[in-house]
Amino acid sequence: MDNIVREIALLTPPENPVERLALLAGDDLGAVDNVIHSRMLSEAALIPDLARHLVDSGGKRLRPLITLASARQFHCSGDAHIKLAAAVEFIHTATLLHDDVVDESMLRRGRPAANTLWGNKPSILVGDFLFSRAFQLMVEVGSTIVLAILANASAVIAEGEVLQLRMSRNLAIGEEHYLKVISAKTAALFAAAAEAGAHAAGAALRQTEAMRSYGHNLGIAFQLVDDALDYSGRQAVMGKSVGDDFREAKVTLPVILSLSRAGDDERRFWRKTIEAGFQDEGDLSHAIEILERGGSLAETIDRARAYARAARQALDVCPESPIRSALADVANFVVDRVY
Amino acid sequence: MDNIVREIALLTPPENPVERLALLAGDDLGAVDNVIHSRMLSEAALIPDLARHLVDSGGKRLRPLITLASARQFHCSGDAHIKLAAAVEFIHTATLLHDDVVDESMLRRGRPAANTLWGNKPSILVGDFLFSRAFQLMVEVGSTIVLAILANASAVIAEGEVLQLRMSRNLAIGEEHYLKVISAKTAALFAAAAEAGAHAAGAALRQTEAMRSYGHNLGIAFQLVDDALDYSGRQAVMGKSVGDDFREAKVTLPVILSLSRAGDDERRFWRKTIEAGFQDEGDLSHAIEILERGGSLAETIDRARAYARAARQALDVCPESPIRSALADVANFVVDRVY
Repeated sequence: MDNIVREIALLTPPENPVERLALLAGDDLGAVDNVIHSRMLSEAALIPDLARHLVDSGGKRLRPLITLASARQFHCSGDAHIKLAAAVEFIHTATLLHDDVVDESMLRRGRPAANTLWGNKPSILVGDFLFSRAFQLMVEVGSTIVLAILANASAVIAEGEVLQLRMSRNLAIGEEHYLKVISAKTAALFAAAAEAGAHAAGAALRQTEAMRSYGHNLGIAFQLVDDALDYSGRQAVMGKSVGDDFREAKVTLPVILSLSRAGDDERRFWRKTIEAGFQDEGDLSHAIEILERGGSLAETIDRARAYARAARQALDVCPESPIRSALADVANFVVDRVY
Repeated sequence: MDNIVREIALLTPPENPVERLALLAGDDLGAVDNVIHSRMLSEAALIPDLARHLVDSGGKRLRPLITLASARQFHCSGDAHIKLAAAVEFIHTATLLHDDVVDESMLRRGRPAANTLWGNKPSILVGDFLFSRAFQLMVEVGSTIVLAILANASAVIAEGEVLQLRMSRNLAIGEEHYLKVISAKTAALFAAAAEAGAHAAGAALRQTEAMRSYGHNLGIAFQLVDDALDYSGRQAVMGKSVGDDFREAKVTLPVILSLSRAGDDERRFWRKTIEAGFQDEGDLSHAIEILERGGSLAETIDRARAYARAARQALDVCPESPIRSALADVANFVVDRVY
C-alpha cells in the first residue's frame, strides 16, 4: 500500500486492532501472502488445491501478523520477517490439517474441513509438506537461533496435541494439566511467532524475551476464550460449530471449573455426557446452561483477561509506537470478541 | 567398541555389507542410538512408548549408517554426523508412521504397525513430534547447508507421497511417473543422508555431489527391489506381508511392465484386480504367476541392478577405503537380498 494512503487510513484507524495491525504492517502482509501462495505450489496439484482451501478461507493471519509487527517494532530491514511470517502460517496450517484429521472435524472457518473434502490421507501428507516448506523458508533466512525457536515450538505443539488426547473423556483432568496443554498446543506458536520476529529485527535479549512473553500470554488468552466460545451461541456467527469440544467429550476449563463446584446432579451430568460419552438431544443446551448459570464461562473469560493483561504488560520494555499500542489492543480484542 | 576388538573383527569381516558398515562405523552407531533414545523422551509418555515400538523393531538403520559412513569417509570430527544420522532416522520413522496411517497398514517389520496398536491419532502426532525433533537436532549442528539438504528432502518426500496417491487403481501410470514417485518418496532421503554426512565432514563439492548421487541411485534400487519383493514369497521371511501393494491396488513397476506386454487376458485381470479393485481368492497368486512368467519381476530387478551399478560408480571420486568398499557392496546387497 502507498505510504500516503496508509497514513490517511491511519487518521481514522479501524476499530478492530487486528485490522489496524494489518494496516500498520503495510505491504508486508501482501508480501507474506505472495510467499505463501508461491511456496505452496507443487507438481502434485493436489497440494496447492488442498492448501489453498485452508489458506484462503479467511483466516485472520493473526500469527504471521504478530511476527511482522514484532519485527517492525524493532525496525527490521530486508525480507527475513516476511519469510518467517509465512513459515509461521505454514506451521499453523499444517497443524490445523492434522488437527482436523485427529479430531474428525467437519467444519473449519465455516467451510467443510479439508479432510471431509479430500479425505484424511491428503490432509496428513499436505500437512507434512507445508511443515517442510516452513523449514525451507526458515533455512533461507539463515538464522539458527530463529530456526531453534520455531523447531522447538513445533516439537512442543506436537507434544501438546499428544497430551491433549488424554483430555478426552477424562474428568480427572485438572486446571494444571489443561494449562500445560494449551500452553503447548496454542501458546507456543504465538510465543515463537512474536519472539522470532523480534529476533530477526535484531532486538535486544530482554525485548525478544518480552515479545515471547507477549505471545505466550496472548496465546493462552486466545485459547481460553476459544474454549469458552465453544459453549456459546456466538460461536455459530464465527463460522465454527458450537459444542465441538462437548461432542468430542474434551475436557476444557469451563467444564473443569464447573466440576470443581458441582453438586450431585451436575456431577452426574458430566459423568454421563463426558466420561461415558452418552449424549442425548438437549444435553449440549443443558451443558451451556450449567456453565452460564454457575459462572464457569464468565470465570474462564476472567482468566483470559488476566493473561491478556500480562501480555500487555510484557510490551512495556518495547519502544512506544502505534504498533505497540495495536499489539496491546489485540490482547484485549481476543478476549472482547466474545461479546 | 574397542579399536583392537574392531580390528580383529574386521580380519574376518561379516559377509553382509550392512553389518560390515556398522562395524566400520565403530562407536558411532551406538552413539546414534543413544541420541535417538534420549531425544524421543517426552513428558507425554505415549510419545516414547509409540516411538520405541518402531525405533527398536529391528530396522537396519540403513539411512543413518549411510550418513555415518559418508562422514567417516571424509574424516569427520566432532559429533555433527551423529546428530545428523539420528535426525535422518527420525525423519524416516516419522514418514513410516504417517505412511502406515495413509496405507492403513497392519504390519511393519513383522510386528503390528503402530496405528493398529495405538490408533491413527497418536501415530500422526508422534510422527509430527519426531519430525520436529529431527529439525531440532539439525539446528544444533548449526549448518544451514545441511539443514537445507534435509528440509528439501522432507518436502520432496511429502510431495512424493501425494503423487503416489494417484498410483492407486490407476493403470494409466507409466514408468516415468513411477520413477518420479520413488525418487521422491524413497531416494530423496537416501540422497540427503549421504550428502549431509559428506557435507558435515567438510568434503569437497564434487564429493558431496557424488555421495548424493550414490544415495539417490541406491534409494531407487532399494525401492525397485522392495516393489518386486512385494510379489515374492521371500517377503514373508522378511517380516512383511506379501501382496500389500496388490491389495492396495497400487501400481508399481512390475505391474507397469506386465501391462506393457499384456495380452487380452492379462489386461482384463489387471483391470479387474487393480483398476476396479475386485480381488478374489487366488488373485494374488495369479498376479505373482503372471509377473514371474512374463519376466516383469526379473526385469524390475535388472533395472535395480543398473541403479546399483550407478551408485557404485558414483563412489569413484571418493578416496579408496574399507568404508568405500563396504558402501559399494551395500549397493549390490540391496539387489541381491532378493535371492
